[in-house]
Amino acid sequence: MSSPQADPYARAAAKFALSCKLASIEALIDWDAQTNMPKGGAWARGEQRGALAEVTSDLTGTPEIGALLDEAQGYADKLDEAERANLAEMRRLYAHRAAVPKELVVERARVSQQLQADWLEAKAKADFSLFAPGFKKLMAIHKEVAAAKGAALGLAPYDAMMDEQDPGLTCAIIDPIFEDLAADLPGLLAAVRERQAGWPAVIEFSGDFSVAKQKVLSERLAHIVGHSPETSRIDVAPHPFSMPHSPGDVRFTTRYSEDKFRYGVMATLHEAGHSMYELNLPRTHAFSPVGFARGASAHESQSLMLEMMAGRSKEFLRFLAPVLHEHLGGDAACWSATNVLNFVRRLDDDYIRVNADELSYPLHVILRYRLEKALLAGDLSVDDIPGAWNEMFGKLFGRVPPDHAKGCLQDIHWAAALFGYFPNYALGESLAAQLFERACADDPAILPALGRGDFKPYFAWVKPRIHDQASLKSFDEIVIGATGTKLSADALKRHLKRRYLDEALD
Amino acid sequence: MSSPQADPYARAAAKFALSCKLASIEALIDWDAQTNMPKGGAWARGEQRGALAEVTSDLTGTPEIGALLDEAQGYADKLDEAERANLAEMRRLYAHRAAVPKELVVERARVSQQLQADWLEAKAKADFSLFAPGFKKLMAIHKEVAAAKGAALGLAPYDAMMDEQDPGLTCAIIDPIFEDLAADLPGLLAAVRERQAGWPAVIEFSGDFSVAKQKVLSERLAHIVGHSPETSRIDVAPHPFSMPHSPGDVRFTTRYSEDKFRYGVMATLHEAGHSMYELNLPRTHAFSPVGFARGASAHESQSLMLEMMAGRSKEFLRFLAPVLHEHLGGDAACWSATNVLNFVRRLDDDYIRVNADELSYPLHVILRYRLEKALLAGDLSVDDIPGAWNEMFGKLFGRVPPDHAKGCLQDIHWAAALFGYFPNYALGESLAAQLFERACADDPAILPALGRGDFKPYFAWVKPRIHDQASLKSFDEIVIGATGTKLSADALKRHLKRRYLDEALD
Repeated sequence: MSSPQADPYARAAAKFALSCKLASIEALIDWDAQTNMPKGGAWARGEQRGALAEVTSDLTGTPEIGALLDEAQGYADKLDEAERANLAEMRRLYAHRAAVPKELVVERARVSQQLQADWLEAKAKADFSLFAPGFKKLMAIHKEVAAAKGAALGLAPYDAMMDEQDPGLTCAIIDPIFEDLAADLPGLLAAVRERQAGWPAVIEFSGDFSVAKQKVLSERLAHIVGHSPETSRIDVAPHPFSMPHSPGDVRFTTRYSEDKFRYGVMATLHEAGHSMYELNLPRTHAFSPVGFARGASAHESQSLMLEMMAGRSKEFLRFLAPVLHEHLGGDAACWSATNVLNFVRRLDDDYIRVNADELSYPLHVILRYRLEKALLAGDLSVDDIPGAWNEMFGKLFGRVPPDHAKGCLQDIHWAAALFGYFPNYALGESLAAQLFERACADDPAILPALGRGDFKPYFAWVKPRIHDQASLKSFDEIVIGATGTKLSADALKRHLKRRYLDEALD
Repeated sequence: MSSPQADPYARAAAKFALSCKLASIEALIDWDAQTNMPKGGAWARGEQRGALAEVTSDLTGTPEIGALLDEAQGYADKLDEAERANLAEMRRLYAHRAAVPKELVVERARVSQQLQADWLEAKAKADFSLFAPGFKKLMAIHKEVAAAKGAALGLAPYDAMMDEQDPGLTCAIIDPIFEDLAADLPGLLAAVRERQAGWPAVIEFSGDFSVAKQKVLSERLAHIVGHSPETSRIDVAPHPFSMPHSPGDVRFTTRYSEDKFRYGVMATLHEAGHSMYELNLPRTHAFSPVGFARGASAHESQSLMLEMMAGRSKEFLRFLAPVLHEHLGGDAACWSATNVLNFVRRLDDDYIRVNADELSYPLHVILRYRLEKALLAGDLSVDDIPGAWNEMFGKLFGRVPPDHAKGCLQDIHWAAALFGYFPNYALGESLAAQLFERACADDPAILPALGRGDFKPYFAWVKPRIHDQASLKSFDEIVIGATGTKLSADALKRHLKRRYLDEALD
């Protein structure tokens, strides 16, 4: 390799660096679409997204790039470790992009842009028929994409869809974990319900739950976790998310309900967790594939560790209770640590995944996973989604959503062309439990510190093991490196039993 | 031409369509940088802008594109009129992009991103030395760019810089207009000052000038002009601007001063004028070079027609006075039409271009134009800007800015790599006067309608003559088509004398 111009690795890496910057831009324009964009901008935003998809495909999905990557692979032993990992990521991304005709990717972006507008309206009106026509178009594209990727990657269609955001995860890995949870959780749920029936009633919360008050509370929570206005901001979006891929700007969104302040608190902790991962990714590898977070399940583990593991720990809730009182006012009695714990830990009868308690959450995901597999296999038609959803929901939870806004229209993912994405939420919860259990065992100071609102020991354990790793190692290597074992549902089951069957209210 | 694949025009147009979408994205990420971005995002935003510049250069500045455009030119007589105009625009853009090495464009974007952060700090501290080092880097790039473009386009360096945003405008056209104004305005200013010395003192304004009240007032003004939340939104930025190139999303920014509510009102009218132009551009030509607005001077004419010509007309101010009272409260006496007119029309001693009255405004621009030409020619060094600015300001206005924040650091343009851009502000004012004079002559209903807050007759005249034309015709053709003559300073001089020497206060 006499010069960067002649060095196939460097030439390919430069193209992928550009594509990473375009991914960063795409994340920003998506953030804007969810937070700021006037409705009239939907068409133009679709064109913009299509353009980014087209340029990305031209940069990193062409036969020339494939040849460059093959050449680079030929002297991979001369690259350093990070370069080899980057090359592996580039080869994976290339395989995904080359497998699918560019026109199809552009079309998917366009259809999805319109479908997100349709979804907003369909959800507002609880009318699935406003969503179905666009989603049929999108499903036809998904089927084509999944078949093409499956053929190129030697994977089953649904596995190929998952591999893009969660490399290496397949149904063969997921199914035993999900079967384990599906077998265990309904019984556990019943036992916890019985136990909680003996708890005193939650004292109703009083205070000022205006959006203005909750906004200041959210900013306080973000600060407690470790965020600063220098590198983050909090806005409102119907479906909260954290903006990825933008070093130094890890803004996220939340939502506020004046009826249920818990939603805002939990969404803020959740997204603050995602954003801490993005904030801590190593700047040396910024804007290269190896510098990205290690897949969707790893990302979700970071949000759920904060929201569920740390955020619902007795230690943190004891710290949180007076903070809530300080910000929201009202009677001191309702803001006692015991009452807050009683409230946060209590199972409820919600229909919405993002509101779900720790025990129900995986079942919400398993439902979507099963429906998605059936949709992609052609065993379920789009028009039959509402019926299938309600039937499966009834079997898992013993009740049926009152309307489709609280049922199959609740999530933005299908509108946003995220398909094969849901499994990571339950895998992320399993990983969150596995990491948190090990973290607390490794450093007994973590839980007491959370009791003082101090997340430093927590992140001191997490950062080197997860955040600093970016995509330098595989998912399995990172999980084993941090916890000693591969991902399973064992820690989550232990955690749920310990927290929900053993822990006392005070 | 058997197929679009083989048709050189269609192939080139597709590349330029992509580049127009990237321009649209760039406008959005710039909007975000001014309104929302945490400070920590500056580095990543620079990388994003650099990536867009690089991709745009690869799409539309390569020898292959040059060859395609030459081929298409060979059968231009077989294209329809809009296609021919689009081809001409593509050839112009190609000439600009091909003339400059891609690395230089990328570097300019990066340097400018950092310089905008430097500028914010320099302005806040009124310290030019914080701005100078970055601006020296940028000036070195500008000189290289101007020389390269000049050579490629057969233009003098400064003309070449102007041609990018204002095609066809050269110093040869500008100089006589600016000399005309520079000769006439100081005398006119003195005469108006003398006349206004005989006016009663302005009754001080009372009311609630909080940002919250002004925000609602701005939204009311935008609605009066013709905007809707469906296609627009108003945010706050230190230097107000309107976001271009995004059909259906013509958001703009304004600023609020609790001391001087006039700033917010005028900035809102100004940017609302820009955004109406963007809103009305023909959707058929969206995302093609021919569908863009016809250059910076034409754009500025649309903002200044609203802010200055219509917005400071006696008719509109009579309508506006009770609207201001309604929104801001306070004593009825100060909100009389006569007092509002006395206030708005009165010359002040401001140092800031964007606050300037109609008479002083062109002199502010002429100052910057002269400095820029000297900087580019090497007759003025960056370190000597503050001294040169203050000296020339003293000659033109008979006073000197108290600090550099109110002097040479007041505008964002130099930080934002806009160079050769200022002239359009004074050309825009001249054109605004020429258009408004003709509009009111063509349709005597326009002024009475403004007196009712009705902009429909106004836009009924402007839209077909300016907005619908996009870049389908040259600047001169559009000006002559609308007003019968080429652009000159005559109408502006007539307008200023009529309004400021002849019109009574009531």
